[in-house]
Amino acid sequence: MAKDADRIRRLQSALKQAQLDGLVLRLPENIVMSFGVWPLNGFSYALFSAEAGPLALIAPSCEDEEMDGCWASDVRFFTWPRLEMADPLEAIRLECQDIARRNGLAQARLGYEGSFECVAPSHNAGEPMVPCESSIRFLKSILPRAKWSDATGLLHQQRALKTESEVARLRMAHRVADAGLRKFLASVKPGMSEAELAGLVYSECLTQGVRSRGVRHVNVFPQISSGANGHRAWRPVVTTGRRLLKSGEIALLEMAVCVDGFWADVTRVKTAGRPSAVQQQAFRAVRAAQAAAVKAIKPGVAASHPHEVATRILIDAGYQKQIVHLTGHGVGFRYHEPEPILMPGNPLELKAGHVCSVEPGLYDPAWGGIRLEDNIVVTADGVEALTKAPKEL
Amino acid sequence: MAKDADRIRRLQSALKQAQLDGLVLRLPENIVMSFGVWPLNGFSYALFSAEAGPLALIAPSCEDEEMDGCWASDVRFFTWPRLEMADPLEAIRLECQDIARRNGLAQARLGYEGSFECVAPSHNAGEPMVPCESSIRFLKSILPRAKWSDATGLLHQQRALKTESEVARLRMAHRVADAGLRKFLASVKPGMSEAELAGLVYSECLTQGVRSRGVRHVNVFPQISSGANGHRAWRPVVTTGRRLLKSGEIALLEMAVCVDGFWADVTRVKTAGRPSAVQQQAFRAVRAAQAAAVKAIKPGVAASHPHEVATRILIDAGYQKQIVHLTGHGVGFRYHEPEPILMPGNPLELKAGHVCSVEPGLYDPAWGGIRLEDNIVVTADGVEALTKAPKEL
Repeated sequence: MAKDADRIRRLQSALKQAQLDGLVLRLPENIVMSFGVWPLNGFSYALFSAEAGPLALIAPSCEDEEMDGCWASDVRFFTWPRLEMADPLEAIRLECQDIARRNGLAQARLGYEGSFECVAPSHNAGEPMVPCESSIRFLKSILPRAKWSDATGLLHQQRALKTESEVARLRMAHRVADAGLRKFLASVKPGMSEAELAGLVYSECLTQGVRSRGVRHVNVFPQISSGANGHRAWRPVVTTGRRLLKSGEIALLEMAVCVDGFWADVTRVKTAGRPSAVQQQAFRAVRAAQAAAVKAIKPGVAASHPHEVATRILIDAGYQKQIVHLTGHGVGFRYHEPEPILMPGNPLELKAGHVCSVEPGLYDPAWGGIRLEDNIVVTADGVEALTKAPKEL
Repeated sequence: MAKDADRIRRLQSALKQAQLDGLVLRLPENIVMSFGVWPLNGFSYALFSAEAGPLALIAPSCEDEEMDGCWASDVRFFTWPRLEMADPLEAIRLECQDIARRNGLAQARLGYEGSFECVAPSHNAGEPMVPCESSIRFLKSILPRAKWSDATGLLHQQRALKTESEVARLRMAHRVADAGLRKFLASVKPGMSEAELAGLVYSECLTQGVRSRGVRHVNVFPQISSGANGHRAWRPVVTTGRRLLKSGEIALLEMAVCVDGFWADVTRVKTAGRPSAVQQQAFRAVRAAQAAAVKAIKPGVAASHPHEVATRILIDAGYQKQIVHLTGHGVGFRYHEPEPILMPGNPLELKAGHVCSVEPGLYDPAWGGIRLEDNIVVTADGVEALTKAPKEL
């Protein structure tokens, strides 16, 4: 990933404004933004300085290849995890202290990741490493004369507006997700199980993803619900099960795709066989609500506005009782990011560079769940669609 | 999951010995052990008391079905995440305070999860929720007169020895993993890509898993490396890529499977086409080393012993330089657990109920990686194999 001068400048300026001399980062989702490399385990320590930008990165030796292209010129490795390794924490302590000393940061004002309760899993999604309470205590003990403060708010604000270079990475993640959505739309048919569908989508995203130029690491998290179960598909996680699709039932695919640390969050629905008039009517309402919400997004508009636009269309079509959730959330460095949230009463002004989902949905025990979820970037005069897969019932 | 009286008794006794009145748990991996239900997002709060056992659980409303069968009789829900929800943290605070007051725990000595730096992802593996520094601060602020202490060590000790009921759940997770291993062994052939293989294994585990009686939630994390790349397959995470298997090359599958919160960690290798004499020789050494290590395991033996047995066989066969990693680690409530570690110098005495991997491996740039990884339970007089899939090159 080429050095993102825009991001580095923004981060430096935010640090100066917050009267911080630097950041010590652990989470891959923050390191990929500030250092241009995506740690695979979450055991790295990265020092970003207000003066010098991406200063130094300390990584486990098993990630040496992945740290190629790091924006910091000072990249150090500790042996992990091999039989001959010494205490990795002691190695980290010494390297951190050396870096701080060489750069006059031993008594600096430093920010850390104190409030990341939701995290993006690293490529090792079966076992993420996260900065727990004692990790933070360890970090503070390394530089006991530094003044530490929780920089979670600053980091989330930085992440809210994506740079040109980050949007380019997001386009790639969405091309991979689109391949999965197309596979889903082409595959749904009576007799197929939720699990089979999830498997097809997973395989398609992974095989298409790793074949793409410039892509190294692909993670795919598909969730399928179907039929009457779909009316609970508004939940953050649904259970892909053994259920077989009957003719006339709707399958709903909710999916996160992560490509080298950049995330897409998308949803499609598809009927096995022929949709009923009732299903078609609800689908048309959702499609119209989504299109209107997207059209309502441009810089200067309140984040509540697209939600109100979508909701008005759904209510006017007679679906007040089937509305459960908000209309969108930030996305990009994680599956869900806190800015911007498209919800009632949110006065936040949308700006160019905001990336979010637009995902109106209707849920009814009679016919299940119908949601369409695309991700968009706010541009100077409207939006760019990141999700490009077709929508059909 | 039927109430595990053995586990509850063990936990109560450990708390009393540690002079703790109770535990407040957030992580699904600890809640499934102590309350018999597996939270899907990681936003639950569970209070386990030394006196009363599993006392109360506060869960998001979207997980109401999943909390069926909870061992606590006091299960409460807060609305999350729906449009009409109030502040969930405020709801959690009030419920926690009410539970503490009713049970005389407002000034109790309470343990919390302060040092879980590696975590098992919840079923929502695309976005785990974890107790970060500020989550712990929030928790402590709810009961400001309680005496809080980090119970991570106590929890890991509890987790190290599995009960009969937990072993039964692990057998199920391993049956699902075995289906994936068999699919892998049957599928490897020249011209197939790493990503295709990972997709086949994922699909097989998921479809077979959710079809199994008593199984609800299945997560699968396959990683494939192949050919010369395989010599780096000792790393905690490898990158499944676009690489096509050539005839005579080895594919290595490393995989975690999670079934309702119970984990398997397994590895198989298979040559595309016919293995060479050099590959066969190395495979035979690994298979012999693994068999001997397994045979060396029984109660009373030091955890270093199976490692030494395996290593001796590999060295005697001429593979000293190809040994990179230790021979096993705990597994069950997570992909990797800290007890028992089969490594040099570990004096820990193995006991009935320990569950661990046995995974000798050899890594050479000339022919790649060869590892066999099975999970076993230590029994009264030896081991029970959890992994039952065949081993062949």
